[in-house]
Amino acid sequence: MYLLCAGAFISSAAFGQSPSESTDSLNIRSLYDEVLLNGEAYENLRTLTKDIGHRLSGSESAGKAMAWGAEVMRLYGADDVRIMPVMVPHWTRGNVANATAHWGNGESKKLHVTALGGSVGTPSNTEIIANVTVVKRLSELKELPSHETEGRIVLFNRPMDPVQINTGSAYGGAYDQRGNGASAAADVGAIGALVRSLTHALDTLPHTGAMRYQDDIPKIPAAAISTVDAAWLAKAVQANPELEIRLEMDCEAFEDVEQGNVIGTWYGTELPDEIITLGGHLDSWDIGEGAHDDGAGVVHTLEVLRLLKAIGYEPRRTLRFVLFINEENGNRGGIAYAEKAREEMEETDRVHIAALESDAGGFVPRGFRIDASDDVTTLMRTWTDLFDPYNIHQFRRGGAGVDISPLKELTPRPTLVGLSPDGQRYFDFHHSAQDVFENVHKRELELGAATFAAAVLLLDQHLPSPTP
Amino acid sequence: MYLLCAGAFISSAAFGQSPSESTDSLNIRSLYDEVLLNGEAYENLRTLTKDIGHRLSGSESAGKAMAWGAEVMRLYGADDVRIMPVMVPHWTRGNVANATAHWGNGESKKLHVTALGGSVGTPSNTEIIANVTVVKRLSELKELPSHETEGRIVLFNRPMDPVQINTGSAYGGAYDQRGNGASAAADVGAIGALVRSLTHALDTLPHTGAMRYQDDIPKIPAAAISTVDAAWLAKAVQANPELEIRLEMDCEAFEDVEQGNVIGTWYGTELPDEIITLGGHLDSWDIGEGAHDDGAGVVHTLEVLRLLKAIGYEPRRTLRFVLFINEENGNRGGIAYAEKAREEMEETDRVHIAALESDAGGFVPRGFRIDASDDVTTLMRTWTDLFDPYNIHQFRRGGAGVDISPLKELTPRPTLVGLSPDGQRYFDFHHSAQDVFENVHKRELELGAATFAAAVLLLDQHLPSPTP
Repeated sequence: MYLLCAGAFISSAAFGQSPSESTDSLNIRSLYDEVLLNGEAYENLRTLTKDIGHRLSGSESAGKAMAWGAEVMRLYGADDVRIMPVMVPHWTRGNVANATAHWGNGESKKLHVTALGGSVGTPSNTEIIANVTVVKRLSELKELPSHETEGRIVLFNRPMDPVQINTGSAYGGAYDQRGNGASAAADVGAIGALVRSLTHALDTLPHTGAMRYQDDIPKIPAAAISTVDAAWLAKAVQANPELEIRLEMDCEAFEDVEQGNVIGTWYGTELPDEIITLGGHLDSWDIGEGAHDDGAGVVHTLEVLRLLKAIGYEPRRTLRFVLFINEENGNRGGIAYAEKAREEMEETDRVHIAALESDAGGFVPRGFRIDASDDVTTLMRTWTDLFDPYNIHQFRRGGAGVDISPLKELTPRPTLVGLSPDGQRYFDFHHSAQDVFENVHKRELELGAATFAAAVLLLDQHLPSPTP
Repeated sequence: MYLLCAGAFISSAAFGQSPSESTDSLNIRSLYDEVLLNGEAYENLRTLTKDIGHRLSGSESAGKAMAWGAEVMRLYGADDVRIMPVMVPHWTRGNVANATAHWGNGESKKLHVTALGGSVGTPSNTEIIANVTVVKRLSELKELPSHETEGRIVLFNRPMDPVQINTGSAYGGAYDQRGNGASAAADVGAIGALVRSLTHALDTLPHTGAMRYQDDIPKIPAAAISTVDAAWLAKAVQANPELEIRLEMDCEAFEDVEQGNVIGTWYGTELPDEIITLGGHLDSWDIGEGAHDDGAGVVHTLEVLRLLKAIGYEPRRTLRFVLFINEENGNRGGIAYAEKAREEMEETDRVHIAALESDAGGFVPRGFRIDASDDVTTLMRTWTDLFDPYNIHQFRRGGAGVDISPLKELTPRPTLVGLSPDGQRYFDFHHSAQDVFENVHKRELELGAATFAAAVLLLDQHLPSPTP
């Protein structure tokens, strides 16, 4: 591509710029200019991921990240910064996660696995040895004869649906294998579970993530297996049903520990008793750096504070910047925050009118998922012209984010909004060793921060106050 | 992110799907399903970039790519495949592109440079040695005293504007330094030109690209210098004006050679004399693999043929699939194609009603650049609901592509449409050694192919025939 096409882009861009010179439009332009000229989100993400590292709930580094987040909020001029204590699970992956396939003739092959979050280790931390049953759906297990389930390791091998345009939908459609597969397998006598990693990518990376045991069913060890290995294993078992898997993991659960949500407050000038919350989650899985999930949301949140200050904005409502703890394996931070918000609303005149979350990665922003009344959804869709110059076009109904979801139970129910970045690459990295700083693009991250800030600003300006 | 958010994505996606069950909507759904289930674009791109390699006009590998493209078109069922001969420039980069900075005390530093396409080598292929004058705009040169320009090397150091949301606009705004800098510098007596690479990235990759010499001005050697080195050199010269650059390049121009456009035709069933052209360019720069520029456009074009056949589509109009030669340094292929189209329209009843191009990378598609009458632009904007489920939202006026741009001169003027992928990462790779297969994402490439196919199908169905 060269000159002619460049000229083409110019006229395209000129046409795309909104002609509006409204205060909103000028403020939004200032936010994007500021982030692209002086953005600090990328350097903050480097600090969070490289200097601090992963942030598994209960880990020392999660504690360091809390202190760092509070410090940045103070530096950026929050009126009040504090930690809301939250008891969080303390689970550790351990040092061993080995899975090998054995043919019985001395030959073997190592598989790429890692423990699912919350899994028990193998008994006495020694290996379990079993034949493999391959299923694609949990419901198949009940239909199998007992000799095909009892004492065996179940491989859940349903891929994410490739034809879903929204990768999150494909993730949701395959999620039950990871979340509930182990208990479903144990319920029919299996002694271990392997779950095909939740990604479209065909690679050798295991992708971890939370799983939960059902009460009254034995807890069996559960591991994520890479997509390449899952596909291989399914074929290998078909060719040789006697093939054995040896699985060994030393992951372990300990007593809950106290960590917390980091909360910065910026008091509103006009309606200080009306609260708009925005945030991401500080905790992450431990096999990467939690760069997209959810380092991006953390630095987006911090950058909104910096950006609004930098353009001289004075919020009408009180803004609460929250770095939630423990989204990945319990959502204790989100639940505690909503509980405190309920108490606050009962005991004071303060009311939570809106909450926004960034927890879908640091990719180029596409728009918003809106979980709100029809009126507010309609209001937000009037902003399309304001956002079009920034290539923001999605104003879809949908869940806004895990951390803020418990706020739905408040009365009156706050407007919930999630930032929607492009999702095509998200699950390549999600919960894997590749969710690292190097896989986040500076400009894309910055555009996300400005988009998030613009949504906060517009809600602050235009969201109607609740009727008493 | 885990379960709740996944559920959120599901409802979001469900809401986003178009409820329309029109033939168009079903056809479009089939195109996306087919590409995501059975897509061959990614494997074709691997073949083109890895088995064949770069495709500089006049090179042997460009010739191989022509033969390969013709073979794939036949395999995919084109009715007629032929090569339209085109004489193209034959310029070679040579083996040497060295630039070093010398302080006069024996110390030196190597800079990352590569020849701009079309540059002459240094005289007698030995180094030129000169002090450096740094400018940001071509217009500054005429205002400098002659001792600051004569016998010197000019560094053009204006960065791409970071606040432009559309990176193509920022590219267009900085392009004059590369395209015209050398002649502007020579016009005031300079003996060499270094041009800051056209990318937002701060890295050590030189990004090449076409430059042109003005008639009647001495031809001086011109090289791209990496952004990191350009920024460093500007500071170094400020600190020490006596700093010398030694530049040596052995690039060379030879006689034009015959290569050609690869053209596959699929005859229309209903209006076979109305022609819709679609294409990308087969040639590329030689320091990477031309994966995004424009391997993506090549495999998009081939995949449209495969996709439309796979869903059982029968085009009303005649479709021409064109792999253009020599977009990068002359546009001889595009010019020859338009000339033949003009002759065809004069000598037969055939009329070129539309042309589409993919030449902006293999990134996630965002929409289209439309260069057409108001009526056709309005028509295309009625397709927003059809495209919304696929996250396609841009229907902007703008230049549609270099290769198809000469078709504007035809009467009646054809509708021109360019595929618009997301541009935030494009210039990280563009014209550099990093424009390689590994930097193209399979699903993003596939979504681009289906989007391109959908546009072809809708134009075939709905574009009004020209009035006689």
